[in-house]
Formats: sequence, structure tokens, C-alpha cells
Amino acid sequence: MSGIPPSLEKLAELMAKFPGIGRKSARRIAFSLLDRPREDIILLARAFLDVKDNVRRCPVCNHITESEPCDICQNPRRDSSVICVVKDSMDVLAIEKTTVFHGKYHVLGGLISPLNGIGPDDLSIEPLLIRAKEIHELVFAINSSVEGEMTMHYIRKMLSNCPVSISYLARGIPIGSDLEFVDDATLARALQSRIELKGE
Amino acid sequence: MSGIPPSLEKLAELMAKFPGIGRKSARRIAFSLLDRPREDIILLARAFLDVKDNVRRCPVCNHITESEPCDICQNPRRDSSVICVVKDSMDVLAIEKTTVFHGKYHVLGGLISPLNGIGPDDLSIEPLLIRAKEIHELVFAINSSVEGEMTMHYIRKMLSNCPVSISYLARGIPIGSDLEFVDDATLARALQSRIELKGE
Repeated sequence: MSGIPPSLEKLAELMAKFPGIGRKSARRIAFSLLDRPREDIILLARAFLDVKDNVRRCPVCNHITESEPCDICQNPRRDSSVICVVKDSMDVLAIEKTTVFHGKYHVLGGLISPLNGIGPDDLSIEPLLIRAKEIHELVFAINSSVEGEMTMHYIRKMLSNCPVSISYLARGIPIGSDLEFVDDATLARALQSRIELKGE
Repeated sequence: MSGIPPSLEKLAELMAKFPGIGRKSARRIAFSLLDRPREDIILLARAFLDVKDNVRRCPVCNHITESEPCDICQNPRRDSSVICVVKDSMDVLAIEKTTVFHGKYHVLGGLISPLNGIGPDDLSIEPLLIRAKEIHELVFAINSSVEGEMTMHYIRKMLSNCPVSISYLARGIPIGSDLEFVDDATLARALQSRIELKGE
């Protein structure tokens, strides 16, 4: 487009490939560089390469890490007999933030999705099946989307001969939500899974 | 936060300083690096530095450019007697996209905003006043926010002895908008500035 310096357009193009960044915000980011000191930009360029060079997948749980195994896998105070299975590393962070889970994790790296050509072999499922033999409980913290259900079903099937107890996150009304804003499927599930109010 | 490698957190922190990128999307960007080839990341780091090193402000109009003066200022087919005054370079792109403006531009680099400590001297106003002496028309393409009105008022006052004709963008109902979704101030302005429907 007329009026955009080529190097700026090039950067905007590269930035727009990142998740959640559209063409317009990619340009806005590129533009904003002009008002920032060169040292900041060097730091940033360096930070991109540092992540690429230092961060890898934990060989045990597949979570991102700079140490091998990762901090969570290494932590002796965490319960090794419970594994929480999640889609990606962002989910580990979300669960860690709640501070209520004290077991370990397994990051699948995606969900089975035949439409997108993602099969079980593209995910970290085989290592999970091996780990599952040594634990008491496996908790699925996975969305109940078509892909999520498919993935949970596949793993459950593969573990049918394994004595591990399998659970999944409770489905129901989000805390603080008004009933009128909850979707039908969630409301139906919350009704079916209603919890008895016990007397004193 | 537990579970995030320090280099990834560092990058997320730097990215979150960019306009339109929150903490969460900054992390998502940092995470996504892991699945991309190292060469891509080198290209990206290079692109950041290229922008910083090659892109500067046009000494005439203050628009971003790699050449001096910028392509628009250099273009002999553009009308030098009309200058469109905008807040920032993104606005130049927006107007260029319409292809209806054939004059030149002047990028203020912001708007006067006493609350944010931005005065006339922090913007490219002095060079505009000098350029205004040589032109026929100055078009303000500036939002009618408090800051926008203040900036236009200031420039108009400084040009009170200059014979340049001053105009601003028409205010009214956006094309394709339903009346019910238009805010009161815009609707009032559209009524006041109504245009006579002439017969055949």
C-alpha cells in the first residue's frame, strides 16, 4: 500500500502470523516502534531468540520449560499419583493460578481433529499412556468440544485395561453467572449433575 | 508465575508493552514461538531492527518513511496546495485507502492533551504553520474529541492571520449505519448539517 515503508510492512506481515494479531494491530505494533528507543528493540529481538533457544518441551509432561524435566515434574511436593491432562501449556498456567491442584500434568499439544488432519500420533498421547500405568488418577481438564470429546474418548479407550481412575472437570454454571446468560447445553448439564444440598 | 519459563515470561512482558496487546495475548504469542522454525524467529528479530534502523519521520510532513522526503511529499502528481492534517501515520493510510484525496499530508504525531502533559511543542505544529503559508487549503482529518477540538482550535488560532482556507471532515451518519445505533451527538450533528435534496 502506498505510504507504508517496506520494512514496516514486512514486520507487520510477520507479526500478523501470530495468534490473535490481525493485520491492523500488526501495523500498529510496527508503527509504535518509531517512538521507542533502539535499545528496547534490541532487547525485544534478543528475547524472541532467547525463547526459541532456551524454551523446550519437558520430556516427561510435554509442558514448556527451560529445565529438564520441568519445575512441576521435578517438584517433590507434588502428588505424582494424579495427572491432569490438558490441551496446551496455557491450560497448565490457568490451572496453576487456581492453586487447588497439587498433582502433575500432561500436555497433549492439541486435540484429535480429523478435519484438521490431527491424529493421535501428532499429539503426546503415547507418553501419557505409559505414564498412566504408574498413577492412581487421571483428570481430563479438556473442553467438551467435538475435538475434546474425541480425544478423551480415544485416551479412555486406550486405557481400558489400565486400573487408573479417570475423571473430568465438573460441568456447570460458571460462578457468578446469571442463569439467563448460560447456554442451553451447560444449563442442561448443570441440571443433570445437580448436587444434593445436605442438611446440617 | 510458577510454570512459565523465565525467558518466555520476559518476552511476554516486552510484548505486552505494545499497543493492543494484553498480558494474555502476549503470553500466547510467546508460546506460539515454540512451534515455529528458528529461521522465522531470526527473520522476525531482524525485521524489528530493520524498522528501527530504516524507518524515520519525513522531514516535510512527519509521516513515516524510508526515503527523505517521503513518497507522498515527493510525488509531483499530488496537489501541493492542499494539506490534510492528521493525528498519526495510521490516519494517512486510512485516507490513502479511500483514493479520493490527492493533496499532501501533515502528521501531527498526537493531539494536544494537557491531562497527558502533551502541549503544542510536543507535536509537529510549528512546521505545519510554516507550510500553511504556501498552500490554499488545510483539511483537518481529526476526530472531534476534546483533544481533537483543542488541537484544531489551537492551529486555527495560530493561522488567524494566514489566508489559507480551513476545512474539516464532514460529520454525519456513517454509510450503512442504522439510525438507532448512531450516538446522539452524531445524529444531532447530521441533522444540523443536513444537505438539501435538489430536484432534477
